[in-house]
Amino acid sequence: MKKIINEVDRVEEQMISGMLKAAPDYIRKLECGNVLVRNKKKEGKVALISGGGSGHEPFAAGYIGSGMLDGVAAGAVYTSPAADQIYEGIKAVSAGRGVLMIIMNYTGDIMNFDMAAEMAQMEGIEVDRVIVNDDVAVDGSLYTTGRRGVAGTVLTAKIAGAMAEAGAELSEVKAAAEKVIANVRTMGVAINPSTIPASGKPGFVLEEDEMEVGIGIHGEPGVYKAKTGTADEISDVLLEKILADIDYSGSEVAVLVNGCGGTPLMELYIVNNHVHDVLESKGIKVYKTLVGNYMTSIEQEGFSITLLKLDDQLKKLLDAPADTMAYKSF
Amino acid sequence: MKKIINEVDRVEEQMISGMLKAAPDYIRKLECGNVLVRNKKKEGKVALISGGGSGHEPFAAGYIGSGMLDGVAAGAVYTSPAADQIYEGIKAVSAGRGVLMIIMNYTGDIMNFDMAAEMAQMEGIEVDRVIVNDDVAVDGSLYTTGRRGVAGTVLTAKIAGAMAEAGAELSEVKAAAEKVIANVRTMGVAINPSTIPASGKPGFVLEEDEMEVGIGIHGEPGVYKAKTGTADEISDVLLEKILADIDYSGSEVAVLVNGCGGTPLMELYIVNNHVHDVLESKGIKVYKTLVGNYMTSIEQEGFSITLLKLDDQLKKLLDAPADTMAYKSF
Repeated sequence: MKKIINEVDRVEEQMISGMLKAAPDYIRKLECGNVLVRNKKKEGKVALISGGGSGHEPFAAGYIGSGMLDGVAAGAVYTSPAADQIYEGIKAVSAGRGVLMIIMNYTGDIMNFDMAAEMAQMEGIEVDRVIVNDDVAVDGSLYTTGRRGVAGTVLTAKIAGAMAEAGAELSEVKAAAEKVIANVRTMGVAINPSTIPASGKPGFVLEEDEMEVGIGIHGEPGVYKAKTGTADEISDVLLEKILADIDYSGSEVAVLVNGCGGTPLMELYIVNNHVHDVLESKGIKVYKTLVGNYMTSIEQEGFSITLLKLDDQLKKLLDAPADTMAYKSF
Repeated sequence: MKKIINEVDRVEEQMISGMLKAAPDYIRKLECGNVLVRNKKKEGKVALISGGGSGHEPFAAGYIGSGMLDGVAAGAVYTSPAADQIYEGIKAVSAGRGVLMIIMNYTGDIMNFDMAAEMAQMEGIEVDRVIVNDDVAVDGSLYTTGRRGVAGTVLTAKIAGAMAEAGAELSEVKAAAEKVIANVRTMGVAINPSTIPASGKPGFVLEEDEMEVGIGIHGEPGVYKAKTGTADEISDVLLEKILADIDYSGSEVAVLVNGCGGTPLMELYIVNNHVHDVLESKGIKVYKTLVGNYMTSIEQEGFSITLLKLDDQLKKLLDAPADTMAYKSF
């Protein structure tokens, strides 16, 4: 394992400490553990909390700020944060108008977020949730019942965040998030694995000419191994499954070409080039494109393609300003 | 060579095409070759042009936009753009008040930029240049006389760009860039190499416990190989050389912890955590911190640390808004 770290059991602590030092205007840490919230709390709005295991940076702490998230509970690498942590986060972000939890569909995350919500509700805080399940690769996996939540979570947080920032009610913010979830689809591939620092072993092993198709974001193997191909061929495999899942014909979409952490921008742009060509050939208009490392798996090399089918409301919310550590505005 | 690309001789073309499709509001391409300029030209300002070889994304095209660059000439991977290309770029960005070339100190780049400037001057365009040479690792190298220009170029472009956007004269924009260059220092390290697609071979080979110290940004070996250490130990090696080079005592600095392309954000934040601790222990105050992939070497794993000693003028220019594809604002 070749990594730029210190003690493996201090990776999360030192990473978060490095984030806090980089962006003290954006984030602060609660005393109780790895829970980060906006440095300047905005009262009188619906609060959004998300999180999950570490290793997906800039998700989720990088999206704390005006127009996106209010707080994040960060677990150990690829491991759900504890219910107690999430509960402290909910209490800290609650600003009098309810809290929406944006949870990725992984069994451990849902269990702990739900437990935290119950604890907060007992104290009179209104808490609701949405579960992102955008990954078309599998209907169930080692860690999940139903589809996994992956890069589409970033778009869900962006759009729900814009709705909350504009002063909407909890039910309206939830409805906007649910609309994203109903219309967002993702699939990913990896050509090199990631290694959890504490384990020291890669999540899978590939030959020089192999790739994992249908990966999640926790370093796990994909649905199947295949021979690598050109960027265009690989993209076609992902797009075929995504485009078969809902009817995009005649619609406008947002495209997110997301890097897994170790993938150079050069390759992501080459993928984006082909994605646009394919969508154009099918009469699908691209309204907005994001290319970069938005939801990663530590140093894994690979990418995912996300398509979000848009209507006028989603376009407006996607375009709304956001001011966070990772991305000042989409 | 495991990469997500198509034909190796179409990497630059397809990457740039993918950029144009991602950000048509920001950039457009000239007919003459891989020269990118702002989609909406701003007249009546000093124009800034930069560039160099491809492979450093998001530098330089990602920094085209309001408050930063006006145009970029992109060569093949790690190869200077041709003088003709740069000349076309200069003509395209020229907006009546002179053009400043921001050149990284590599012999090939300087030769071609200078030749382009002469051609443009013959047509009556006022052209001046600054040469960034922030790398403290070497005083000369295979590709350079004097120190190499590396990640400090991003800060030079940011600050000169803010000055130009505010309506300053060419001499004033140049003076601001020169002030950055006089006060910015960088050093980098790599734990895994990059591979130029057209060559198919990595720029250097390292054992599992080795690193290259004092790397440039063209995938070349560093000044020496050494046993890897902890993130803190590696950072100390870089900081020691940087801090010995100019007197930072009692001053305020901007910190840029820059990833080489394949390095996860997790590791960069761990580095940042220690950099802040070291600077604090020496009485150096951090005014602003940037952590991420700003100046890369394709998929190389490693990082560089950049310190920029600030005064009030530089702080103001660094804080000024910028709206580019890669970073909406620092």
